[in-house]
This record gives sequence, structure tokens and C-alpha cells, in this order.
Amino acid sequence: MKFVSFRKDGAVRLGVLADDGIIDLNQAQPQVPADLGAALQAGVDLQAAAKAAIASSAPRLPADSIAYAPVVPRPGKIICLGLNYFDHAKEGGRDKPEYPWFFFRGATSLLAHGEPTVRPRVSDKFDYEAELAVVIGKAGRHVKRDQAMDLVFGYACFNDISVRDYQKRTPQWTIGKNFDATGAFGPHLVTADELPAAAKGLSIKCRLNGQVMQDANTSDMIFDIPETIELLTEVLTLEPGDVIVMGTPAGVGQARNPQVWMKPGDVVEIEIEKVGLLRNPVTAEA
Amino acid sequence: MKFVSFRKDGAVRLGVLADDGIIDLNQAQPQVPADLGAALQAGVDLQAAAKAAIASSAPRLPADSIAYAPVVPRPGKIICLGLNYFDHAKEGGRDKPEYPWFFFRGATSLLAHGEPTVRPRVSDKFDYEAELAVVIGKAGRHVKRDQAMDLVFGYACFNDISVRDYQKRTPQWTIGKNFDATGAFGPHLVTADELPAAAKGLSIKCRLNGQVMQDANTSDMIFDIPETIELLTEVLTLEPGDVIVMGTPAGVGQARNPQVWMKPGDVVEIEIEKVGLLRNPVTAEA
Repeated sequence: MKFVSFRKDGAVRLGVLADDGIIDLNQAQPQVPADLGAALQAGVDLQAAAKAAIASSAPRLPADSIAYAPVVPRPGKIICLGLNYFDHAKEGGRDKPEYPWFFFRGATSLLAHGEPTVRPRVSDKFDYEAELAVVIGKAGRHVKRDQAMDLVFGYACFNDISVRDYQKRTPQWTIGKNFDATGAFGPHLVTADELPAAAKGLSIKCRLNGQVMQDANTSDMIFDIPETIELLTEVLTLEPGDVIVMGTPAGVGQARNPQVWMKPGDVVEIEIEKVGLLRNPVTAEA
Repeated sequence: MKFVSFRKDGAVRLGVLADDGIIDLNQAQPQVPADLGAALQAGVDLQAAAKAAIASSAPRLPADSIAYAPVVPRPGKIICLGLNYFDHAKEGGRDKPEYPWFFFRGATSLLAHGEPTVRPRVSDKFDYEAELAVVIGKAGRHVKRDQAMDLVFGYACFNDISVRDYQKRTPQWTIGKNFDATGAFGPHLVTADELPAAAKGLSIKCRLNGQVMQDANTSDMIFDIPETIELLTEVLTLEPGDVIVMGTPAGVGQARNPQVWMKPGDVVEIEIEKVGLLRNPVTAEA
């Protein structure tokens, strides 16, 4: 099943993708919260709600008619992994990490499919990062890797856009990963049952203006999803609606010779096999 | 004015401190959201609501009868500064930073006044950090330092409890700052009008089992609150209910000789002049 968050009359709505268009799930099933994170927290059976909506005569919206919102509009936590593909660690001159380099994004950094990512006034070191996002569906603490996939509701594409000079102003990367409108998240969520176990073996690519800049496979992650969940829940409670962003492969603009930075007018795409195609234009901050 | 979040019948409530006890503001003024962050986001005039409640005959609860909740129970962002007092940077062998070392906490790490902080199973490197927390009342982006205090609603004590070996597993400190029940936040919020401008000149102390471990002054911060808000809003939007945690002075357990780690049975207190006294017992994770 595929779910989409979209904007209508100034509010966020939750939709489900049917073969013939998008169904406004809140209209078809009014008991379902309009925010995907809230729906997961409330323990709503979204698969059942979506099936009922698809079986109904609820109106279908053309997929290209909606204004997308970030898949989970306001996650409680957005936990990102740095250096989780060895070829990317190597291109940055780093060793293979023995523990994930975790940092957090705030929800103010998110943007949706189709929305412009904003190159800030203060920097032109504006770089893409193709990543797989994992959306948590059930709360967990101290979850071992063989049980970890029970926590996962689904997946989406993520562009972990980085302002490299701010990322490196201090050893803490957080600030360079939290500019407004730099965490692209979409277009839709694919539920875990539609993908191979732990989302392994999927092609993951970034294209900038149509040119392939990153081209790898989700099986190349150093810390896979089950191990990452085990390590995280050793420390903290994962909650429904939390998002884990699984790191990027080699090919980022910063590591190229010459370096490549995204500029206003560019179009950046993240495509993950069986997950989706996330496209964002680049604009300059006003 | 002083506001307090507390738990009643499994839900969070917002209260105001009167001379003769705590008034349940949601009961006295039912239009006020029960969550302080939500009330700030809704733009409620909390000072007016509190004055009306105090002037009314609304019931008073004894301050020692309530179960405190974190001052803002679910902040959108919790932004922490590392190394923001030079004597603390020095005791850790660091230079005076030229830019704040920002990292984020998630709301799952918070705990309230009186609640036990939990030393995790996986580490005994459990350390206190006395800090001043700033609660944002109005949204802002690109706010210069001379306007920055307009964004501040109030202040509270914060204990930025750190699991030092996890903090140092990689250069990213985030994971060592995000164990469940390690970010103590309370007991109450003091509105900005009750303190000196930008909360300067206030004594800030940590006591462990009654012994003073940190003893400094908020004027010793390297990046003060207005400059911090200017630097943050260069990057991101601060939203009502966001929290900025302003860093800790010298005297942490890790930098002592011999080192001091908090143990189950200990009691840790953060006291900031005119702001409050935050007390938490230490327990072992089950």
C-alpha cells in the first residue's frame, strides 16, 4: 500500500494511492487522523482503512493534481545516519565507522515532493544526498535486530540536503543539516510488506538535472535497518511517526573533482527502486 | 509569571503558580490548550489568562501535591549548545569555540522535576550538566540579536544529562545526549519579564547529593541568548514551544580527578537564581 500526505485548504490530509488516483482517506474514513504520524500514534489500522477506501466509490484525485506534504509532516524524531555507505565514508577520507554517526533533523527542515529546496543566503555549498527513510509504526525500546522489523511501517525517499560549510563549522554536523526546506521527504510512503525484507537489494540513485550523481544499492549500507533499530533502541524509545534516514552512498557534490554544488534552477531527483521518485527544484532564498 | 506543566488523570495540564498554590489553568480558562507548546503555537495570551485565573476563586493545588511534567512536554525542537562556557571548554581540553556546537535532543529524552533520571544498562558514565533552558514564544527567521529577545517567552532549569561513552563513540554527540529520561526540564517556567535582560547575571549551580559540583554565572556564556538566536535563525525557523538549552559551565563529573559519575540513589539538583530549583533522583534502568 502507498500513502501520501498532501495539503488541502491550508491543512494536511492523508491519502492512499489507488490504481486510478489518490483517495482522500480522511474524507473516505473520517475516523482516521489527517496526520500520518498521529494516525500511527493512535494505532489506526491504516492498511484496513486504505483497503476499505479503495473498495469504496470514494472520489479519486489525479496524482498530479495534489500539493504534496512531507510523508510524515511533523515527526517526533528524525534520526539520520552519517557515513553509512563505505564508499561514501571513503570519498570523505573517513574510515568505516564502528558505530553509526547519528544526528537529528528538526521538522522545520522538511519539504515535500515538488516543493523547492531553498539554497540559503549564507552559503552556496548546497549538496544532495540520496537516502532511504524508514517510518516507524510501533513504539519500541531494547528491540533486538531479529524483532526490529516489527517496528517499521514503511519507507520513502529522502534527500538529506546539506549546507557543507555549516556542517563543518564545528565537529557537530547538526546545524548544516537543519536549514529550512532542505530535508525532502516523499513523494509517498510504501508499506514494508511491498518491499524485500529490510528494504535490501534496492537501487538508489540521485540525479541532478538528469545526470546520475549517485548510483548504489541499499544492500551496501554498513548498518542495515534491523541493526540500526537495535542500536537506537538500546538508547531511546522509537515512537510511531519517528523517521530514520539511513545515510547516503558515494557521489556527493562535495567529494567530486571539481566539486558540484546545487544552484537555483537545478532539479534534483532521488529514485529508489520500488519506493518512488522524489523530485525537487532548487531556488535561492529571497 | 510562573507556569507549570503537570500530569492529571493520564494527561498533561497547564498550571500557573499563584502565591497560595497552583491553579489548573485549563480548568480556570478552558480555551487555553493543556500543552504549553500548543498554547504558545496558538498564540494564546498566557499572561492575561494567568492573571485572570489568579484573580478568580479557582481552586489552588498545593505545589507539592502535583506530578510535574516537562515544562514543554513535546517541543518541536530542543536545540542544545555544547562548550558554551569557556571554563567548561577548557576543562575538556577544547579551545573557545568560534561558533556554537549545536546538537538536538528528542522529546523522548525529557523528564520532569521530581521524576527519576535513569542510568542506562549499557553505561555507568552518567554525568550532570546544569543549563539554562530558553522557551521560544514567537516564530522567527533571520532575527538580529537586538530583536531576538522578542522571541523568548521564558526560562527554566535544565539538566543536560550525558552518557559520556556514547557521546564520544563518534564525533557526533547526539546519541549520548538522547537516552530516555536524561533531559530534566523544570520545575516551572519563569516568564522573561521577571528576569534581567537576556537572563544575564544569574547564579547557576549543580549539586550532587548536596555538594556543589558546578557554580557559575549565566553572564559567563560565550554565546549569549540574543547572539544564539541570531545564529540559529540564520539557518532555521524557531517556532513557539521550541527550546534552546544554553550549555554548561565547568565542574562536570567527567572532567574531575577522580571522575565522578552519578549512581542510583543519588539526588541531583540544578538551581538557577530567580529561575528555580530542579531536583531529580537517579535510578538504575530495570
